[in-house]
Amino acid sequence: MASKEEIIAFLKNDFPQNKCIVEKVGAKSARVRLKVGMEDLRPGGTVSGPSLMTIADVALYVAILGEIGIVPLAVTTNLNISFLRKPAADRDIIAQCNLIKLGRTLAIGDVFIYSENDSRAVAHAVGTYALPASRG
Amino acid sequence: MASKEEIIAFLKNDFPQNKCIVEKVGAKSARVRLKVGMEDLRPGGTVSGPSLMTIADVALYVAILGEIGIVPLAVTTNLNISFLRKPAADRDIIAQCNLIKLGRTLAIGDVFIYSENDSRAVAHAVGTYALPASRG
Amino acid sequence: MASKEEIIAFLKNDFPQNKCIVEKVGAKSARVRLKVGMEDLRPGGTVSGPSLMTIADVALYVAILGEIGIVPLAVTTNLNISFLRKPAADRDIIAQCNLIKLGRTLAIGDVFIYSENDSRAVAHAVGTYALPASRG
Amino acid sequence: MASKEEIIAFLKNDFPQNKCIVEKVGAKSARVRLKVGMEDLRPGGTVSGPSLMTIADVALYVAILGEIGIVPLAVTTNLNISFLRKPAADRDIIAQCNLIKLGRTLAIGDVFIYSENDSRAVAHAVGTYALPASRG
Repeated sequence: MASKEEIIAFLKNDFPQNKCIVEKVGAKSARVRLKVGMEDLRPGGTVSGPSLMTIADVALYVAILGEIGIVPLAVTTNLNISFLRKPAADRDIIAQCNLIKLGRTLAIGDVFIYSENDSRAVAHAVGTYALPASRG
Repeated sequence: MASKEEIIAFLKNDFPQNKCIVEKVGAKSARVRLKVGMEDLRPGGTVSGPSLMTIADVALYVAILGEIGIVPLAVTTNLNISFLRKPAADRDIIAQCNLIKLGRTLAIGDVFIYSENDSRAVAHAVGTYALPASRG
Repeated sequence: MASKEEIIAFLKNDFPQNKCIVEKVGAKSARVRLKVGMEDLRPGGTVSGPSLMTIADVALYVAILGEIGIVPLAVTTNLNISFLRKPAADRDIIAQCNLIKLGRTLAIGDVFIYSENDSRAVAHAVGTYALPASRG
Repeated sequence: MASKEEIIAFLKNDFPQNKCIVEKVGAKSARVRLKVGMEDLRPGGTVSGPSLMTIADVALYVAILGEIGIVPLAVTTNLNISFLRKPAADRDIIAQCNLIKLGRTLAIGDVFIYSENDSRAVAHAVGTYALPASRG
């Protein structure tokens, strides 16, 4: 298992391009925040699909690290994302991940993605990570 | 909107091959039960993948009918199912669906599937239905 | 690797409930046929979604067995199926699977499903199997 | 229908942040290229998942525009992506999309993604777009 602080330090070091802020980790779950910047916006005043996919993937990775510890070799093998509503351009994006399987070689989680202060999800993702079998 | 009784009557009439029992409908959700029969079993003492996919699809359909009323023309366009654990052969299967989007032409729901009396899901599905645009 | 004859014998023995006919195996692919029976039909004169999901899963399994040999412990972990057109009730269903990844612990394939003698796919699936790591 | 030139002009105008180069459009298909930049790279010398998801989505959008003409209101409703192999950091990424359904309100396509000059796909995606029903 890894603490929120350990995960934040690891991401800072190994994923310097990551913009997502880790807010909560533990109990097979994670909450992550994206401060929407110019590069995340799309014409029509909304947040781009790739930005939503990125935060979904990060939330899943953080939830997994929280359970199995700092394992750089975990990799996404599948991400299935449904876009439900247009996210607001002027609000942070929040992703809440819950792991629904944590096996020896596979972890699967679902992620609900929101515009801050709106309870209706803007997107929903299910993602699978392959875990290194010999992780001690 | 359709009541549980209306949906049960509709399924009996229009889907005579359906074996799933509607237990609960409403508030954008549905709970459905499958009494596992010989034809649902797989060698090794477990429930077949197609039986799990069927109950996921029925739970989604019931949740949708509960919201939009009896609309025979709603059809599944996509189902994404993850198999998480081996279901028990000697327990009923329960599927709990929550709609995460109910638009004019598309409805999307997620479904957690359990062996009765076990809180760990055996499968998780996300499904999309296309709705007839002119449904009054 | 397993030959078409070995796979047919294995399925007959270990999956007696299987109705799909193995037509072709090899080169990371498989073709499988379903003779549509009463139990596969849905009101409106079409083939049920679960029947299509079943043939997709069998086609994928057969393609994998063709590459890695008879491995009963390979299990589906994910199936994503899109329903594209209404299949004809009075024609056989044909599924053509191509493996797009064959790794040590995961195999992924895509499957196009047709009504016989119609070149437009009625459904398309992508499926993942977890493979036992120590399979000799 | 829209020509390659019309689509390039439309993307330039309406999606100024787009980095993907349209190489081919027509016959329900499209080929798109990403010149990998620093912002697409991930530690370990590979291309990031979000960059692959972005090119998959663009390839699908271009294939659709090629068939139905310039329709800004088409939006992605679902993207399912499988990561198959580590893409090379020093090669362009190529995405080849084929539409497998083009209906009145939904279009579905599959996308194979490659590192240039390597015939083994690095990723595979299936995506769904919702189309405006009244598009003339």
